[in-house]
This record gives sequence, structure tokens and C-alpha cells, in this order.
Amino acid sequence: MVEKGKIMRILFVGDVMGNTGQEVLEEYLPKLKHLYHPQVTIVNGENATRGRGINEKVYKRILSCGADVVTMGNHTWDNPEITDFIGSAKKLIRPANFSAGQVPGIGYTTIKINQQELAVLNLQGRIFMTPSDDPFAVAKDIITDLRKKTSLIFVDFHAETTSEKAAFAWYFDGQVSAVVGTHTHIQTNDARILPQGTAFLTDVGMTGPYDGIIGMKRQNVIARFLNQMPTRFEVDESGRRNLSACLLEIDNEMGRAKKIKTILINPDHPFMQ
Amino acid sequence: MVEKGKIMRILFVGDVMGNTGQEVLEEYLPKLKHLYHPQVTIVNGENATRGRGINEKVYKRILSCGADVVTMGNHTWDNPEITDFIGSAKKLIRPANFSAGQVPGIGYTTIKINQQELAVLNLQGRIFMTPSDDPFAVAKDIITDLRKKTSLIFVDFHAETTSEKAAFAWYFDGQVSAVVGTHTHIQTNDARILPQGTAFLTDVGMTGPYDGIIGMKRQNVIARFLNQMPTRFEVDESGRRNLSACLLEIDNEMGRAKKIKTILINPDHPFMQ
Amino acid sequence: MVEKGKIMRILFVGDVMGNTGQEVLEEYLPKLKHLYHPQVTIVNGENATRGRGINEKVYKRILSCGADVVTMGNHTWDNPEITDFIGSAKKLIRPANFSAGQVPGIGYTTIKINQQELAVLNLQGRIFMTPSDDPFAVAKDIITDLRKKTSLIFVDFHAETTSEKAAFAWYFDGQVSAVVGTHTHIQTNDARILPQGTAFLTDVGMTGPYDGIIGMKRQNVIARFLNQMPTRFEVDESGRRNLSACLLEIDNEMGRAKKIKTILINPDHPFMQ
Amino acid sequence: MVEKGKIMRILFVGDVMGNTGQEVLEEYLPKLKHLYHPQVTIVNGENATRGRGINEKVYKRILSCGADVVTMGNHTWDNPEITDFIGSAKKLIRPANFSAGQVPGIGYTTIKINQQELAVLNLQGRIFMTPSDDPFAVAKDIITDLRKKTSLIFVDFHAETTSEKAAFAWYFDGQVSAVVGTHTHIQTNDARILPQGTAFLTDVGMTGPYDGIIGMKRQNVIARFLNQMPTRFEVDESGRRNLSACLLEIDNEMGRAKKIKTILINPDHPFMQ
Ligand SMILES: [Fe+2]
Ligand SMILES: [Fe+2]
Ligand SMILES: [Fe+2]
Ligand SMILES: [Fe+2]
Ligand SMILES: [Fe+2]
Ligand SMILES: [Fe+2]
Ligand SMILES: [Fe+2]
Ligand SMILES: [Fe+2]
Repeated sequence: MVEKGKIMRILFVGDVMGNTGQEVLEEYLPKLKHLYHPQVTIVNGENATRGRGINEKVYKRILSCGADVVTMGNHTWDNPEITDFIGSAKKLIRPANFSAGQVPGIGYTTIKINQQELAVLNLQGRIFMTPSDDPFAVAKDIITDLRKKTSLIFVDFHAETTSEKAAFAWYFDGQVSAVVGTHTHIQTNDARILPQGTAFLTDVGMTGPYDGIIGMKRQNVIARFLNQMPTRFEVDESGRRNLSACLLEIDNEMGRAKKIKTILINPDHPFMQ
Repeated sequence: MVEKGKIMRILFVGDVMGNTGQEVLEEYLPKLKHLYHPQVTIVNGENATRGRGINEKVYKRILSCGADVVTMGNHTWDNPEITDFIGSAKKLIRPANFSAGQVPGIGYTTIKINQQELAVLNLQGRIFMTPSDDPFAVAKDIITDLRKKTSLIFVDFHAETTSEKAAFAWYFDGQVSAVVGTHTHIQTNDARILPQGTAFLTDVGMTGPYDGIIGMKRQNVIARFLNQMPTRFEVDESGRRNLSACLLEIDNEMGRAKKIKTILINPDHPFMQ
Repeated sequence: MVEKGKIMRILFVGDVMGNTGQEVLEEYLPKLKHLYHPQVTIVNGENATRGRGINEKVYKRILSCGADVVTMGNHTWDNPEITDFIGSAKKLIRPANFSAGQVPGIGYTTIKINQQELAVLNLQGRIFMTPSDDPFAVAKDIITDLRKKTSLIFVDFHAETTSEKAAFAWYFDGQVSAVVGTHTHIQTNDARILPQGTAFLTDVGMTGPYDGIIGMKRQNVIARFLNQMPTRFEVDESGRRNLSACLLEIDNEMGRAKKIKTILINPDHPFMQ
Repeated sequence: MVEKGKIMRILFVGDVMGNTGQEVLEEYLPKLKHLYHPQVTIVNGENATRGRGINEKVYKRILSCGADVVTMGNHTWDNPEITDFIGSAKKLIRPANFSAGQVPGIGYTTIKINQQELAVLNLQGRIFMTPSDDPFAVAKDIITDLRKKTSLIFVDFHAETTSEKAAFAWYFDGQVSAVVGTHTHIQTNDARILPQGTAFLTDVGMTGPYDGIIGMKRQNVIARFLNQMPTRFEVDESGRRNLSACLLEIDNEMGRAKKIKTILINPDHPFMQ
């Protein structure tokens, strides 16, 4: 491990799916913290309540599992209960480029770790997704502002296509510490540090059922592809489980990433202490 | 290495981008063959000629690099020269679910390896892609037919979303030896063997420039995201390089996969013999 | 009016929206029949039950209003009650190019009018719509078959884009008597007879609320565009009303269209006997 | 005709397709002006140069045919020559919600007619279109500003879906004089004046070939639907022709629309003086 005070370690856990995802978090977050000693833990919670959005109870459970910030995505509003608490949920951020001035909640936050401040920013892509404000333009304004206070900036970029995620990461290379993608629910194998110091991973993957399809019961998803008739997708709450995450090491002074490492825990990748 | 005659080893190399991708193939295919001794090598060539489609010269070069079969995808027709040779190109397959009876070329082929026959099938997804015939229905008919001759079946499923790829793999689990995805140009980290013996990898990734965006010059792709004005994407033919592939081991008798392993060769993952 | 026995008159009423649409039908279908004396009346019912799909009660009400055939579209399965009766509903057709062999119901039907037989065929486009089988290929097979029995063929082509609708109509010009589009809920002003005798109208429009947006309550639809948050769209069941239809005259012997005329009834186009 | 000085008459001509469209304009614009005496003539020119974008020569030809303002749409940048002159083309406007600060040109303009000032605003929708800034938010800011100077505001809203166009028109009902849609190339039959005085027409339609598909050669468009292979669409420059337009009468003082009337000139709707 690197010298204390010089490196900030961030653990980022991908889209928690339903109760299964919450239980995986409960079981493994303490173990991962024990193993890696991250100062900050960020969890994507857009699918935390029954696969669609999040309510206050689940938000609090994720925090009590050890998350410091919960990020969201295109499923932000799926659970209508979110409007009851998003206004006062200081550790919950939804994509910052949602229709400006039209929606509740915040798109980024900062947390103090000893003498350092880490900014966490959530954005959503536009390709093959519901219309939103321009993520590049919105991010540029926010990042310019944030950099007056800190150079430690973590971005959860929630998007469908690899090209939009890569374009975002390369465009902000050197301006932010890390760009980690979410949304596809499958971890990619391309974790790297770009030339100017931004860590990049196209998608961190999903946390929940291991034998579902994007975490949903297989038979329902397959049926939809076979007959195109509407089916209610439900989280596959039984059976084997999966955790998808990544660990980052950021230079405290420059905000440059020193390391990015993917983490998988599932029957094919058992947890090893 | 496993006992000869009992296991078929397949090497599958993801979307070759332009001349850079061809050069990577030329350099590393012999080395990979020396290291892994695959009996069959399959290469996705949909981006082989300047990033868009393939012409005969490049097709032949890929074969002479050591490919036994070349698969395609949504870029199949981008290079109009393909119509000059696809009718007689026995080792080139394009998605089998392209408009039935309306397009040249074939969607699958079989190759004899000693006493064994391997079928290679190419399909394209429909979510966020140009309309095509139903890949599930078309595949079901073809696979039912193929299985009368052989249980060794490899599928290159070219699709955008993780859910369509996973649904396909789970639906045909036990009916085919492997489903490997292509199209996103980023390798996923989820190689696994499904319960009934089908090897599955959501996306094998791309072979070509390492510092482009999906293999294209970064500045053009970024510009498009910033201003939405048309730009001509060009393969980033200079600079560092990347090879994305996977290795499969299939039980010769049952057609069940025994092993699937991802391969990356790039500056962050140097080739080691 | 033309000589009896030589001309078949068809009245086609566009997408009936909810209870309001049913009431409009109840009020004006008798009046339109009195005025135009159609031998056949066809009604699109994909939005008939609360804006989403159709149930048996509403299906029967539409028939009792005077419809001979009810056509559907992308909302076919929205009301799950449809599966209770579609198997035996002989006058209900859903797009014929829904996943072959995977869904209940029929895609076309024929009705006997005196000595003549009229075939009614429903299809769905693919551009910007849920995947389906190829409407051009499916239609070609069905139409080839139908023409062995009759040259009087009416097509409700349910699609989003004007180009797909026009391509379909021109491709089958001379093979069918009429191609009338549905789905956009706004009547187009391009009713015409193509050179080989097929009547064509890009979209017949919607029957229901006049001051909603595509028949839904305005405030909900506008809110969605402003903030992109999910809202439940509901049929605007109060207020002013609209009927959108067209009248066709088809030569009984050749199946060629002689006339196509749009019909609108709403406060800006009051019904005149 | 109404009392001079109290009513402003606006003629709006829909998407001019290629040379054929220009010739139609040349032939009929003088005749329409003679017949209707509009004080202002607006022409959508996004397809004016060979179906894709516009160059300076064609822009000037359209002006010399009698246009006061030329509006654009999603094809704005298709002809790269536009960047040569858009910076100084005072009568050319492109969608105002193109990426703010990233593209040349202007999104609205004003013209002086006697003592009155008319503002013309061009916007683009987001559903099934290339990403752009929020048209509702951008329009709100511009319209609020414009209304400090004038209440005579004409909007060309270039969009695919009927719902987005209708939502826009209803949202700005009473704030602008007219919302006329473009893009689908087929005139709709729903011209009306909304309760607060905004004239609305979902789509004005296209000006050019009458027997093409959206103005393109039929065989190429049909081929694309049959085989999904790339074809170069070309304007159908031979054969019968079509003009699509609408005429508006706006109360000079309040900016409220008094009348909206669609105009079609083609073999099925011959021009009558
Ligand atoms: Fe998710
Ligand atoms: Fe998501
Ligand atoms: Fe590719
Ligand atoms: Fe592809
Ligand atoms: Fe409808
Ligand atoms: Fe519909
Ligand atoms: Fe256009
Ligand atoms: Fe357009």
C-alpha cells in the first residue's frame, strides 16, 4: 500500500440490483474495505429497489453498508418514492445533465476525507437514451468550477455506447481523476490510465444476480426477445450472486490516477482475501 | 494442453480495424498460434478495410495471416467492393439473419478439422441496430439443422446491447458450443461457461488502434459529440496498438465448452510468451 | 353514388382513443354510414381501452357501433386481457409481421360482401419501432396468396415514418387496393391513387379527444418533454372531440381504387350531412 | 383580403428538395404571391442542394425566387459548403437548439415589414433525431427575449414525431403566432388555431418530386427497405412535381393567428388562380 496521505483510494461498486444486490453489498463491502482500505466508497443505486430506482429505505441501507455516495442513472425516477427524500438526500446524486431547472436532486457532491476533498459527479449519455442536456457541455461547466476547489474528481458516466463513454473520458483526460461507466451491467476489460492521468473503465458492471440477464429473471427477458410482447421484468432474487466494482488510487495532490483495477466476485471469481 | 483429439481449440479475434488492425493480426496471429495451438482461427473483419467493410485484398490478407473464417456485422456492405467477391468467398460469412433471399453471401459455414466439423454462424442483433430478420428465429432453424451434422457450433453474435447478447446465449445454452459477442469494440470481462456448456463472452473487443475511440481518430469522434456536426471518421492508423481475442476449448464429442479465456495485447497488457 | 355491384365502398376509421373515441364512434359511425353507404367499415382499435390496447368489452362495443374488422398496431398487447379473447376474435387482426409462430391472433382476414371478398391485412413498420418480422417480406407472401382468391385487399400499415409507409405503398402499387397508414394519430393531407391503382394515405389520424396530444392529456405529455421524468399518460376523456377517417371506392373486378377521400369531424370541421 | 396594416400574411413553403424543388419554387412562388399577397415568405431549405443541405448558390436562388428567410433542419450540415457562407448569411437560420456555442450560424432572425417586426425561429426535436439541446428550454429563453420586441413570432419546428410537435405548440400557445412543423415531407391535415391564438400545423410537407419517396428516387428507397443494404438516395429530378405550403394571417397587434390554411400544388391538386 502507498504512503498514507499521498494517495486516495476509491472503491466504486456498479449498479446494485434489487434486494439481492443489497445483500451482496452487505456481505462483501466490509470484506472489500478490510482488504483494500478505500477512503471513499461510491455505489451506483439506480436499480437498487426491485430493479427500478431507489426509495429511502434502500438508500439508507446502502449507506449503512458503507457507501459514502450513491449515484444514479436513467432509472432515477422509476420508483416514485424518490421524490419524497431526494430533496434532502445529501449523499445521493443523479445525472447532472438532467433537464436543467426542471428536476429535483443534485448532480454532484463533494466529500471531505481528512484534508482532501473529493468531488463525485454523475452524468448520463445521449446515444440510445432518453433525451437529456448535453453531458459534455454540462460537465465542462461543472468541472471547471469544481477544479477551483479540488483536482480530485470522480465521474460515473451512465451511458449505453462505448464510443460516447470513451469520447467523454478522452475529452476530460487530465481534467478529472477517473471516468467510470455504468449502465450496461457487464464489466468491461479495458481499465486503463489515459495519458494525462485520468483512469478510465468503460463499464464497471452490475451487482446482484449472477444468472439473470442484466440482473433480471432470464425467462422474462428471453420471452421478450422471442415474441416482443410486454413482460414485467423482475430481479432474479434467487440463486448465485455477483459483485462488480473497481478500485482506484488517486494522487492526492495532482488528482491524477495512479491505478485502476477491476473487481469481480462471483462463482467463477470467488473472493479471496 | 489437453489430450489431442479430444478438445478443439478455437481462437477468435475481434473486429479488425483498418490497416493497423491487419498489421496487428500479421504480427500476433503467428505468435498466438504458436502459444495456444488453436485448430481453428476466426476473425471478425467488418471494419477491416479503412474501418468500413472489407474488400477482397484485405479478406485475402486476413486469410493469409492465418484466419480460417472471417465474420462480419453491421458494416458488411459499407465497402461496395464486397459484392465483387462475396458470392465466391467461401470463408467469409455475414449475419445469417440479413433480409432472407435479398442479399448475397452466406450466414454460416462449416470447416473440417481432422475428423471433426466445426460450424461457424454469424448473426446480428436488432436492438439499436438496422432492422434485420429475427436472430433468435433464424438461429433456431439453422442450429437445429447444423446439429444433425455436428454439435461443434461457434456463434459470433454482433449486437449493441448486453441484454440481447445474454438472452441469445442463455436461450441457446447447450445447443451451441460458444456465443461470443462483437460490435462494441470493447472487450468485456465476463467470459464464462453457462450451465449447459455454452461458452459466453458479451464482447470480444477490437483489434487495431489502442488510443483511438472504437478505433477511430479521437479528435473526430470527440468533435461529433461536442457539436453534432457530421465528420468523417477515420481509423487512427498511427500510434499504439491493441489486439482483442478469446480462446475456447470445446469438447469434441459433446460440443460443450471446457474453457473460455480472454486475450488482450496492448501497451497495458504486453504479450508474454 | 356509383353503380351498385361495381364499386366497393370502404370506410376506415383511425385509432380510437379510449372511451372518448368509442363515444365518437357511437355517435358518428351511423351518420357516416347513412351518408356514404360503405359496404365495409374498418376501425383501428389499438388504443381503444384507456389508450392502450383493447379488451373484449370494448372490442364488442366497436363491432356493435358498426365495425366489420378491427385492426391493431404496436399497442396490441398493452392490455393483457387481449389474450383472453384474441384466439377466438374473428374480426380482430393484429400486425401480421409480429414474431412468426410466437404470438396469438391473426394478421389478416377476409369478409364476404355480396359476391365479393375483401381481404384486410394489418402490418407494422420497423423504423423507430419495436423489432418485428420484415413487413415487406411477410406482406409479399400473404398478398401473393390472397390474390389467388381476391384482388380486393385493404392494408392498415401501422408505422412511424412517412418513408416506410410510402415505400410500402409504392412497392405494392397495383397489388393491393389500398394502403392506409396509422400510428401517428395525425391525419395527413396526401390521399391519392398511385399509378397502378393503389389508394394511399400516409396516416388516417386518430379518433378521440381533440385537445389532447395524440389523444392524451396535454399537461402530462408536455411535462414529459420538459423534465423527461416518467408520467402516466391518460386519455383526455373530457372536452372537444375528433374523428379521423377515410372513404375508399374500389373497383370490384380489378381491385383498383377509384377514389380516396379523407374525413375529419371536429369543432374546426363540423359534420355536415 | 383583410385591412392593410392590421394583418400580416405569411407564406411558408416546406422542405425544398433539390433542383426540382427549386424549379417548383421558381414557377409557383410568384403565382402564390400574386394570389395571396403575403408580406413575408419563409422557405425551408434543408434539402435544397441535391437533397442534402444547402450551398450558397442555391440559398441565393431561393432568395431570388422571393424568400425572405430560409430555415433548416437536421440536414443543415450535410453540404459542407454551408460553412463557407453561413457566417454571413443573414437570412438563413438553422435550429436554435444546436449545441450551444459549438456551431456557426444563427437560430432566429427578425424582419421588418412596414412598422412591424416578425421574428422567425427554427428549432429541432429530439425524439428519433440526433441529440441537440432541449428545444423547449432553448425556445423559452429566446421567445421570452423576443417578446420584449415583438409578439409576431413564427416557429419552424423540425421534428419527427407528432407528439413532440404538438407538445411544443400547446406549450407555447399564446406565446408565439405560429408553430409549423417540418421534416416528415408529408403535409398533415390538422391546421388549426389553438385556444390562445397560436396557429399550428404538424407538418407543412415537402416541395419537389411528386412521385418519389420523401422526394428521393423510389427504387433506391424501396431497395433499402427490402434488403437493408446501403444505397445512395438521390432526388428524383424527373417527372411530376409538388409544392407544399401554408398561409398564415396574424393579427399585427396581438400576434395572434387569425387563419391558417394549407396549400398543395400537384397533379392531384392543380394550381387555381
Ligand atoms: Fe443499471
Ligand atoms: Fe441504466
Ligand atoms: Fe466493429
Ligand atoms: Fe459493428
Ligand atoms: Fe395509435
Ligand atoms: Fe401505434
Ligand atoms: Fe427535409
Ligand atoms: Fe429533416
